[in-house]
Amino acid sequence: MGSSLKFALGAVWGKDLPSGEVLSSLKSRVLSAFHDLVNRKDPSWLGWMDLPDQEVDGVMEAADWLRGFDAFVQVGIGGSALGNLMLHQALIGDIEMKTAKPCFYLADNPDPMKLQEMWKDLEGRRFALVGVSKSGSTAETTSQFMWFLDKLKGSYDSVLLITDPEGGIFRKFVNETGCRSLPLRSDVGGRYSVLSPVGLLSAAALGIPVDQLLEGARAMRDGLISQGDFDRNPAMRLAACHLYHEISQRPMAVMMPYSSRLERFSEWFAQLWGESLGKEGRGTTPIRALGAIDQHSQVQLYMEGPDDKFFTIIDVAFPQDVAIPQASSEALKSLDYLAGKGLGEMLRKEAMATASALAGAGRPVMWIQMERLDPRSLGELIFFYQFTTAITGLAMGVNPFDQPGVEQGKRYTYGLMGRPGFEEEAERAERAFDVISSEVL
Amino acid sequence: MGSSLKFALGAVWGKDLPSGEVLSSLKSRVLSAFHDLVNRKDPSWLGWMDLPDQEVDGVMEAADWLRGFDAFVQVGIGGSALGNLMLHQALIGDIEMKTAKPCFYLADNPDPMKLQEMWKDLEGRRFALVGVSKSGSTAETTSQFMWFLDKLKGSYDSVLLITDPEGGIFRKFVNETGCRSLPLRSDVGGRYSVLSPVGLLSAAALGIPVDQLLEGARAMRDGLISQGDFDRNPAMRLAACHLYHEISQRPMAVMMPYSSRLERFSEWFAQLWGESLGKEGRGTTPIRALGAIDQHSQVQLYMEGPDDKFFTIIDVAFPQDVAIPQASSEALKSLDYLAGKGLGEMLRKEAMATASALAGAGRPVMWIQMERLDPRSLGELIFFYQFTTAITGLAMGVNPFDQPGVEQGKRYTYGLMGRPGFEEEAERAERAFDVISSEVL
Repeated sequence: MGSSLKFALGAVWGKDLPSGEVLSSLKSRVLSAFHDLVNRKDPSWLGWMDLPDQEVDGVMEAADWLRGFDAFVQVGIGGSALGNLMLHQALIGDIEMKTAKPCFYLADNPDPMKLQEMWKDLEGRRFALVGVSKSGSTAETTSQFMWFLDKLKGSYDSVLLITDPEGGIFRKFVNETGCRSLPLRSDVGGRYSVLSPVGLLSAAALGIPVDQLLEGARAMRDGLISQGDFDRNPAMRLAACHLYHEISQRPMAVMMPYSSRLERFSEWFAQLWGESLGKEGRGTTPIRALGAIDQHSQVQLYMEGPDDKFFTIIDVAFPQDVAIPQASSEALKSLDYLAGKGLGEMLRKEAMATASALAGAGRPVMWIQMERLDPRSLGELIFFYQFTTAITGLAMGVNPFDQPGVEQGKRYTYGLMGRPGFEEEAERAERAFDVISSEVL
Repeated sequence: MGSSLKFALGAVWGKDLPSGEVLSSLKSRVLSAFHDLVNRKDPSWLGWMDLPDQEVDGVMEAADWLRGFDAFVQVGIGGSALGNLMLHQALIGDIEMKTAKPCFYLADNPDPMKLQEMWKDLEGRRFALVGVSKSGSTAETTSQFMWFLDKLKGSYDSVLLITDPEGGIFRKFVNETGCRSLPLRSDVGGRYSVLSPVGLLSAAALGIPVDQLLEGARAMRDGLISQGDFDRNPAMRLAACHLYHEISQRPMAVMMPYSSRLERFSEWFAQLWGESLGKEGRGTTPIRALGAIDQHSQVQLYMEGPDDKFFTIIDVAFPQDVAIPQASSEALKSLDYLAGKGLGEMLRKEAMATASALAGAGRPVMWIQMERLDPRSLGELIFFYQFTTAITGLAMGVNPFDQPGVEQGKRYTYGLMGRPGFEEEAERAERAFDVISSEVL
C-alpha cells in the first residue's frame, strides 16, 4: 500500500477458520460491495469520498478569522463534535489543548452544569460562536446556539455556521443575518464529515496542517480504490472478517489503540461503526478501549470471558522515547531490568503482549501498525475506516449512510418538550415510561 | 431505601419474560450469594465493605500536606486511577479541574508523548509525587514513579505512597526512605478501592468532602444488607436481571448516565464489572455510554441492531437549570417551542425519551434516578454497584475479586522487556506474534 499503516492479518479469524465455501461467499459479497462503492452505484451519500480533493481556502480564511478571538465555542453533537475532539487530541494533545490559543470550547451535551462551568471560564473574553448542524434543527445544538447567541447580544459578526449550502434553518439564519458560513455538503453524512469543514475548521484554527490530513486521506483512498484484488486490499479483507464474526456469534468489535492520543479515535470510530451498521437487527457493537489502560480494566474479560469479540489493536511508533532511569533506592533494585529501557518501548511491547495473549487464546485479532502519528497518517487511518465501514455495510445489505433508528427518540423528545404537532408522541413516550416506572424501589 | 437513588424496575426483563421456574432459580442463586456476602463467608476480599466506616484522619492530614504544593502527580493505573478521575469529574467538573489548586496530574498510561507533555506543563513547579500500587511491581506505575523520582532528585519528603501496609516493593521503599504513606488494605482489590485512601486522598486534597462520600456509601451498605427480601432489594433484583440476560444471549451491559459529570463513572463501572465477572467463559461486556451524546452515536445501534444488550439509564436532577432564550431572528422562529424551557429539562426528557423508545422496542431497561449529584449520592451509587457486582459474580459462581486473566499478558510483557526469569515467556509471546504478523499488507 505504500502507506504509513501496516495491517497484519494473520490471526483475524480466531480459532474457528471459515470453511472454503463460507470464505468464497464472503469474498463475493465484499467484492460486489467494493465495486458498488467504487463505481458509485448510489452516489447520494458518497460525498465523503471526494472530501480529500476539496479546496481548503475557505476553511483557512475562516481559521485565520477565528485566531483573532481569545476563544471560540463550537456548538454541535455526534458527527459535529467527535471528529474535532479526535483531531485535537491526536495531533495537539490533551494537556496542550488546555492552554491552546485561541481557547477551544465544545458545547456538545446539553448539560446545564457543563454549560455553566464553561460560561464561568469564558465570560468576559472575546469569543466566536461556531454552530455545526446540517439542518439547524438538532435540538441539543440549536438550543445551545440560541443560548450563546443571546450572550453575544446580536453581534452576528462573531458567528459562523457550518451547514447545508442550500436548505435548513441554519442556512436561513445565514441568509437573514449575513453571518459567516462554510458548506456541509448535503451528500456527506455527519459521521463521515470529519474531513469536511466540520472537522477541519477547528483543527486549522488550532494550527493543525489540514492539507496533510487530506493528503493522507487521498493517498489511502486512491490506494484502496485501485486495489481490486480482495487478498491485497485490507479494507475488503477486514470487511469480510467483520461479516464472518458477526455470523459467528462475535457481536463486538473492540478498537484498542496503544496511545493516549488515540483514545478519542475510538470514540469517533464507535459512532461511524455503530450508526452505520446497527440496523435491521444487524451490526456489531463497537467497544472503545485504550491500551495499556484497559489491560487493567477490560483485558481480564477479553481473555477469559466469552469468545465474543473481534479485536483491533493499533500500535503506534513514538517519535521520541522517554528513558526509564535507574532507581537509587535498594527497595526498587528488582526493577533494574527496566532501567535504560524506553517507556514507549514498554507500551509497544505491552501491545504486542496483549495481542499475543489474545491470539494465543484463539481470539481473533487484527494488528495495525502506525509508523508515526501525524496529520498524514491520521488522514490515512480515518479514510481507511470510513471506506471499510461503507463496504462492510453494503456487503451486509444495510444502508451504511442513514440512521432511521434515532428518529423515534427524537420525536419523543419533541413531544415531551412541547413542540407543536408532536402531542401524540408525548403521550406515547409517557405511556412507555409508565411501564418502566411501574415498579420503583 | 430512603436514599437519593430511585430504581425503576418495570422494564428490566425486555420482551422475553423469564418463566416462573427460571425466575425462582435465579432468585435462589442470588439469595444464596447475598447471604454469603453479607455473612462474609469468605472474608479475604471483603475489606471494601468496611471502607465506609474508616477513620479519615490520615487521609485529611496528607491532603493538607498536598495542598502545600503547586501540583501533585498521581502515578497509578486501573483501579489506582479510574476512581480518582470519576470523583474529580463528578464532584468538581472537567473545566474547573483545569485550574484546580493544587494542580492534579495523573500518570496512568505509560505513553511517552503524554509524559513529555505533562512534564512540559509541570517543570519548574513544586510538586508532590503520589504513587499508588499495592505491590509496587505494576510495571506501568513503577517505571513512571522512577521517572518522577529522578526528577525530584531524591527529595523523598515530596513523596507519598499508597500501598500495602506490610509487604511489597513500595512498602519496602517507604521503610527505606522514610517517605509518607497511606495504607491500601490487602483485603481491598484495586477495582473496589475508590473509597479507600486510593480514591479519597486526591479528592480530599481538591476539596471534596470525603466524609460525605463515605456517609452515602455507609447508608447504602446498611440499607442493602438489612433488606433480605429479594423483591425489595434493588441489588439482588439487578443481579438476577444480569444473570438472566447473560443466559438470554444479551452479552452486553450498557451504562448510560445523562450527565457529562458521570462520563467517567461509566469507565469506573466498566472496570468493576468487566474484571469482576469476565472469567471462566462467563460475564457480560460493559459498554460505556453517555447521554445525550450517544443518542447521536450509539442509539441507532441500540434501537435497530440486535437485541443483545441490557440498558441502565441514569437520570440526574440538576441543582440549577439554564433557560433557553427566545431567538430574535426570523429563521429560528420554528424553535420558539424551546424558549423558556430548561436545558437540563431537555436533557432529562431526552433520557426519558431514549428509555421509552428502547423499552417500547422490547429492549430491557433499568432506570436509576438520582435526586441530586453530590458526594453523598455518589457514595451511594458507588457502593450500590460494588455490592451488586459482588452478588452477581457470586451468583454466577465466579470469584468477583480476582483477575487471573491479566497475568498472561503481564508475563509476556516482563519477558519482552527482558526481566530475568521470563525468557521463556518472551519466546512464547514472539511465537504468538509471528502468527499475527504472518500476513502483512
